[in-house]
Amino acid sequence: MSTFKFSELPVAAFRAGAERRIVYTDHLMLVIFDFSDGPQTQPDPPHRHPHEQVSYVVEGEILFFLGDEPPVHLVPGDGYTVPADIPHCIQLLTPRARLVDAFTPLREDFLST
Amino acid sequence: MSTFKFSELPVAAFRAGAERRIVYTDHLMLVIFDFSDGPQTQPDPPHRHPHEQVSYVVEGEILFFLGDEPPVHLVPGDGYTVPADIPHCIQLLTPRARLVDAFTPLREDFLST
Repeated sequence: MSTFKFSELPVAAFRAGAERRIVYTDHLMLVIFDFSDGPQTQPDPPHRHPHEQVSYVVEGEILFFLGDEPPVHLVPGDGYTVPADIPHCIQLLTPRARLVDAFTPLREDFLST
Repeated sequence: MSTFKFSELPVAAFRAGAERRIVYTDHLMLVIFDFSDGPQTQPDPPHRHPHEQVSYVVEGEILFFLGDEPPVHLVPGDGYTVPADIPHCIQLLTPRARLVDAFTPLREDFLST
């Protein structure tokens, strides 16, 4: 089936207050992240991956950190790109937030966990 | 700059009642589509492209048509995948709708128009 209903997607609760739902084709993955443990007093630890990423803020407000750049305050409708292998992280400014992240190639680590 | 503000993205008004804003990396494109000419009494003409696509409904309700499959009613949080070269289209069920579409490879046709 080519469509997905949010309520029917498998959920990975990868840490307390954070859920991940994934949808993908051969080379493209969309990940719906829901956070409910904000606001946070500091960003999460930076992480990096070889995948290209473009992210869109659906709900909530965040600070986005990329490499050594100053953090940027993002609201719904805004977003960011992440080049391969550049450390990045976010900090929640609101109690809840939803991000939609697109990746290529597939995040194999999300398929196995 | 790695972040984007919705209000600062270039807008392509590709038809009356429809706007497109694009963000992309080397192999990944995110497109924010805003429609304001709904509800529609029939779907738009089917189109096809060789790109893989995953789409997410941010706002509004639509019917999604893929190939010969029956249409599916989608609401915010839902979405769909489109395999390469399969005809597909949507029909707006609400006055306004926002879709976020991810593509790989880049939609070169969106870069030039």
